[in-house]
Amino acid sequence: MNEERSSKKVGKAVLDAIKSGAPNVDLDLLPNLMDMSPASITENVHAINSLCKDKRQKFLFEQLVTHLHDFAREVGLTTEEWMTAIQFLTSTGKICSDIRQEFILLSDVLGLSALVDSMNHPVTASATEGTVLGPFFTEDAKELKAGDSIASEGKGEYMWCEGRIVDINGNPVPHCKIETWETDDEGKYDTQYEERTEADCRGRLISDEQGYYSYRAILPTPYPIPNDGPVGALLKSLNRHVFRPAHLHMMFYREGYETLITALYFKGDPYLKSDAVFGVKTSLIVDPVLVKDESKAKALGFKNGPFWHLKKDYVLLTTAQAEEQKQKSLANYYASLQ
Amino acid sequence: MNEERSSKKVGKAVLDAIKSGAPNVDLDLLPNLMDMSPASITENVHAINSLCKDKRQKFLFEQLVTHLHDFAREVGLTTEEWMTAIQFLTSTGKICSDIRQEFILLSDVLGLSALVDSMNHPVTASATEGTVLGPFFTEDAKELKAGDSIASEGKGEYMWCEGRIVDINGNPVPHCKIETWETDDEGKYDTQYEERTEADCRGRLISDEQGYYSYRAILPTPYPIPNDGPVGALLKSLNRHVFRPAHLHMMFYREGYETLITALYFKGDPYLKSDAVFGVKTSLIVDPVLVKDESKAKALGFKNGPFWHLKKDYVLLTTAQAEEQKQKSLANYYASLQ
Repeated sequence: MNEERSSKKVGKAVLDAIKSGAPNVDLDLLPNLMDMSPASITENVHAINSLCKDKRQKFLFEQLVTHLHDFAREVGLTTEEWMTAIQFLTSTGKICSDIRQEFILLSDVLGLSALVDSMNHPVTASATEGTVLGPFFTEDAKELKAGDSIASEGKGEYMWCEGRIVDINGNPVPHCKIETWETDDEGKYDTQYEERTEADCRGRLISDEQGYYSYRAILPTPYPIPNDGPVGALLKSLNRHVFRPAHLHMMFYREGYETLITALYFKGDPYLKSDAVFGVKTSLIVDPVLVKDESKAKALGFKNGPFWHLKKDYVLLTTAQAEEQKQKSLANYYASLQ
Repeated sequence: MNEERSSKKVGKAVLDAIKSGAPNVDLDLLPNLMDMSPASITENVHAINSLCKDKRQKFLFEQLVTHLHDFAREVGLTTEEWMTAIQFLTSTGKICSDIRQEFILLSDVLGLSALVDSMNHPVTASATEGTVLGPFFTEDAKELKAGDSIASEGKGEYMWCEGRIVDINGNPVPHCKIETWETDDEGKYDTQYEERTEADCRGRLISDEQGYYSYRAILPTPYPIPNDGPVGALLKSLNRHVFRPAHLHMMFYREGYETLITALYFKGDPYLKSDAVFGVKTSLIVDPVLVKDESKAKALGFKNGPFWHLKKDYVLLTTAQAEEQKQKSLANYYASLQ
C-alpha cells in the first residue's frame, strides 16, 4: 500500500465518469465551496453555476436558485418540511404515466400553468384566447373525418360542434390540425377508466379549404381533478375544492400560425368562477342551443335527437403576430413594475 | 332529456369525490378566479389557498406561490421551458426507488440541502457540525458489535474508527445509536451495484457506557454522484463537475439529544473545495494516521496490516440546546437583513 491515501487520489469511479462524458473542469479555477452558511450558500451556488455556457440557462438557474433559497430562508424551512417536500415530489413523479401527468396537475393548481399560458399567449382584441392544457391530453386520439363522432355511443348528451378557423382578417385557415378531448357524462376522461383499451371522447380532425370543421361530441360535465394522488391530498390539506367546470378541450396546429391551446366552458356551470386550475376565461364561455328536431339529428349522424348545437369560430395568430403580442405584453408588464 | 344542460348540474364524478372526502366548500364564499392574467393570478391563488386551516401551511404556500410566480414572471418563462421543467421533474421522480433518491440529489446540487441543514443545525463553538444527508442512506444496514467491520473483505484500504460521543460538557453519551455508511475503494455505494443482495459498507452500532464506539471500515474514495439520471444531465448542461470528495457518513440518535447527521472528509482530497453538493466543513476534515504494525492490525480484527487510524470524538447538543441555537441563529439572520 502506498502511503498516499486513496482519498487523495482520483480513483476508478471518477475516471469512469470523466470517460463517459462528465465535465472535467480545472479545479483551480473553481470557487471555494467549503463551510457554506445560510448567508454564503446562494452566491456560491451562483458562482459554480456560472460555468454554464448557455446564457439563458445560466440566467434561469440564477433566478431559480435565488428564489428557492430565499423561500427556504424566509420561511425558516425545517428539516421535516424539507423531507415532506422531497417525499411529495417523489410520489408526484411516481404516479405519472403515459396517461397521467401529476406534475402538470400540480403546476395547474398552483396557478403556474395559467401564469405561463397567459404570459406566452397574451390576450389580444382579435384572436381566440388560450387556456391551460391540463394533464389529460394523450397522443393516441383517432383521426376523424368531418362530421364523425369523437365519442362512442352512450357517453352523454349529443353535441354538434362546428365553425370556422380563421386569421385575424377573417380569412380561412385551411388544413388546420385540430385535437379535441373531453370528459364523458360521468365527468371522467377515458384515461380514468382502468379497462381503457383505446381513445374515447378524443379526436383529431383537419379543417377544410374554407377553414370549416365539424364533428359530433357529447356535452362534457363538471368533474374533480384526479384526487387520489399527491395533488388531491394537497388540495384537501389546503381546504380547496377539486372541481373544474365542464369544458371541451381544443388545440389547433398549422405551420406559420401560433399553436392555440384552449377550451370552451359552458354558461351556467356552478364551477365557472372557482375552477381548481384557474382556466376559465369569459371569452371562452359558450351557450349551446338545444335542437329537438329528430330529422336534423339523424341527418348529422346522431341515432336520434335532441342534440346541443355548439357553433364556434376560432381566430388564430400567425407566429409573427403572436411573437409581437408577447413582446408587447412583456414590455407592458415590466413597465408596470417601474 | 331535460332542457337544463348536464354542465349546469353537479354530476356523478363530483358527488363521488365529495362522498370520498374532497372538501365541499360554499361556492358563494370563493373569490372569482376567472380571466386570470400575469398581474392577477398570484393574489388569486393566495385568496383560494387562504381557506387552509393550518397557519404554518398557509404561510408556506403563500411564500412558495409568490416565489414560484415571481420566478416565472421575472424570467418570462416560455411554454417550452415550462414543459422541460415538467419533464425533468417527472423523470426525477421516476428514477427514485428504495435505494435511489434523485430529488434529494437535486436538492443537494442546488445547494438547498446545505442551506436547510445549516439553518436547522447552526454552527456552535462546542458541538460537532452537521452536513448533508445525501441520497445514499438506507434502512437495511446490519447491527454490529464494537470492533466489527462495516465492510466485507476486499473493499478497500483498512481503517480503524474509534472515539467518544459526548455532550458539550464532555460527559459521555452512552447507548447512542450510530449509523455509518461509505463508498468502497472504487467510489461506489453498495446500492450502485446491480447485484446487491444485502447492505455492505454500512453499519449500525451503539456507544458503550463511556460513550465509546469503535468499528472497522475502509478508506472511502472520491466519487461522482449518480450521473446517469436527470441530475447528472443537469450538471453536465451547467458544465459542473459531478464529484464529491471521499467521506464517511455518520448519524447519531439518542433520545433527549438533537440527531446529528454529519460526515468526515479527508485532508488532501482533490475535491474538498468544490464538492458537488456543498457539504464540506473545515471542522469535519480529518487526517487519519497510517499504522504499519501487523500485530496491532490483527489484534483489531484486520487480516493483516497496515491500516489507517481515525480517531474522532463527536459532541452532541441536547434537544433544548439545539432549539436555542437555532432560534438565536435565525434571529441573527433576520437582524442582518434590517
